[in-house]
Amino acid sequence: MYYPEPISKLIEGFMKLPGIGPKTAGRLAFFVLSMKEDDVLDLGKALVNAKRNLTYCTVCCNITDIDPCRICMDKHRDQSVICVVQDPKDVIAMERTKEFQGLYHVLNGAISPMEGIGPEDIKIPELLKRLENEEVQEIILATNPTIEGEATSMYISKLIKPFGLKVTRIAHGLPVGGDLEYADEVTLMKALEGRREI
Amino acid sequence: MYYPEPISKLIEGFMKLPGIGPKTAGRLAFFVLSMKEDDVLDLGKALVNAKRNLTYCTVCCNITDIDPCRICMDKHRDQSVICVVQDPKDVIAMERTKEFQGLYHVLNGAISPMEGIGPEDIKIPELLKRLENEEVQEIILATNPTIEGEATSMYISKLIKPFGLKVTRIAHGLPVGGDLEYADEVTLMKALEGRREI
Repeated sequence: MYYPEPISKLIEGFMKLPGIGPKTAGRLAFFVLSMKEDDVLDLGKALVNAKRNLTYCTVCCNITDIDPCRICMDKHRDQSVICVVQDPKDVIAMERTKEFQGLYHVLNGAISPMEGIGPEDIKIPELLKRLENEEVQEIILATNPTIEGEATSMYISKLIKPFGLKVTRIAHGLPVGGDLEYADEVTLMKALEGRREI
Repeated sequence: MYYPEPISKLIEGFMKLPGIGPKTAGRLAFFVLSMKEDDVLDLGKALVNAKRNLTYCTVCCNITDIDPCRICMDKHRDQSVICVVQDPKDVIAMERTKEFQGLYHVLNGAISPMEGIGPEDIKIPELLKRLENEEVQEIILATNPTIEGEATSMYISKLIKPFGLKVTRIAHGLPVGGDLEYADEVTLMKALEGRREI
């Protein structure tokens, strides 16, 4: 005899989520039983709604509930700069700085031969199409500072160069609040390389 | 600008679950977007079903989808022994041993003055009512070996004694595969106290 079916189904469902094994799934399932019914209904609806009502913006390929997304439709934003990021979460991170006022392009991935992800599997063609718009003057490559991110940036910059646009890469260096002593060599090397006169 | 509404609602929903903060909730929510629609629907349904279709067994107070529960209805089980546990999960743990063939009683908690949980807040009255059945001969107290569990066991044993039933407590000692060197003093003391002739 194991759990009654409704709870074992819920446990199975939770186990499909990343980082949730049988123990955590059991804990979550029993917690759900102790939650208010309204909260459970809300969560159930939110799950289905998120899956059903979200699509990718046909312009910037970011996740959105309206198409084109709010950022692409915002005429107050600087239409001449496009910041290229890997992930919708990166857009949120950039927006939190309140510094960048341009547009975004979300690749939804990075080139990774190890995982079999080639340039045609991420949203590079969509980016190239946007460059035909004459307003665009600068492309900021803000992919992650990892091997995959760097490779993607290099690849894109080579593709874009013929368009005669300004192509920049975000700076590598020591994170603010970090400690020189604990910085790895590559970061330190990049920080030295990128030094600026003050 | 933050996440589109469907996803921020889902993140909020996930954050109501225990041990899930904003970062994990975000990760789970984005994972949901990449899941198959059927899997998401199943999880949504499982959530609502678990909340709606599960009740407490009116006999043993365990969680169940039919009342009385499958264990209480099973006439092949030994009706003379009741094993008292704190939690529905403890029933599963006991069942996994395949050793115990009697019935259960789930207290759904333990006496804890610190958290304001008194004897009337857990299913002790329901247990006493079951003792009126003349078939019952032994009560095994299998609450957790914690202060609250011990207090609950002591309290229940004092209540039951007048019924003239056999009342036993599960053994404390070293866990199998454990190491004497790393055992705490209280466990070791209990293991000594509970020594048996071989």
